[in-house]
Amino acid sequence: MKHTVRMTGSLDPRSSWEASNCTIAKALEIVSTRSAFLILREAFFGTTRFDDFAERARVSEPVAASRLHELVQEGMLEREDYREPGKRTRQHYRLTDKGADLFPTLVALMQWGNRWLDDHGGPVELRHSDCGQPVEVQLTCAAGHRVGPDELELAVHHQR
Amino acid sequence: MKHTVRMTGSLDPRSSWEASNCTIAKALEIVSTRSAFLILREAFFGTTRFDDFAERARVSEPVAASRLHELVQEGMLEREDYREPGKRTRQHYRLTDKGADLFPTLVALMQWGNRWLDDHGGPVELRHSDCGQPVEVQLTCAAGHRVGPDELELAVHHQR
Repeated sequence: MKHTVRMTGSLDPRSSWEASNCTIAKALEIVSTRSAFLILREAFFGTTRFDDFAERARVSEPVAASRLHELVQEGMLEREDYREPGKRTRQHYRLTDKGADLFPTLVALMQWGNRWLDDHGGPVELRHSDCGQPVEVQLTCAAGHRVGPDELELAVHHQR
Repeated sequence: MKHTVRMTGSLDPRSSWEASNCTIAKALEIVSTRSAFLILREAFFGTTRFDDFAERARVSEPVAASRLHELVQEGMLEREDYREPGKRTRQHYRLTDKGADLFPTLVALMQWGNRWLDDHGGPVELRHSDCGQPVEVQLTCAAGHRVGPDELELAVHHQR
């Protein structure tokens, strides 16, 4: 069937199992709101200060405070107290390795939005700093092949 | 700064602009809930019938009905009436090209969840049907280079 993934091994037929322990579902428990994604977007853009997160993600301060707290709790961001001489202590937030590893997901969303939701291909683009060429997410297999949407199989994980 | 994207051209400094028309934000207006992502996951797995969506995405029937309706309205799924002889008409839902193009986003979420939220690397894995190797999303530039997280720049889109 067009646009679907072929089920293999014990996953075939599809009706014989349900997606328990699905890590997409688990991921969406942690990053579950539009505002969480936008706060993370800003962290990738270099935002660290509470005020800047609220302003640049265009969310209210209580929403920004909740999201930042949740993202710290989940280990996506780490909080760092920072104090300039003579000023009050401020909190800065930086991506952890776990948080930073969500970057391809945001790029994939941007790529999809650029293609389907904007007449001009999106306001901004990512480029490879070495060669200046635009960057995309691509499905690639461990043997280095670029994988088309019709060449995908789902299987029980080897290590299980 | 670690884990951040370098701003270039008129995007530097970051404080001089805000992300208006951000296509990540627009994408998250369309696919804005965990249940929407899980309904789409099931569509990629080959689910077409209303009952199966509700059961397999583990959402209530009213939630499934709302999400399917919204996804049809947004052009992610198309509804098709289907009738077996002697039975009542049923609705089937299939991914459109627009909906199918969100697949890399789901793969990126799965990949992140497999790495960070599951002790065994996730219950299932995607494989390349030609060679059997596991499939990942990778950041790749138009010149074919695999791009590391430290080699990214954000720039105003060429076509604008």
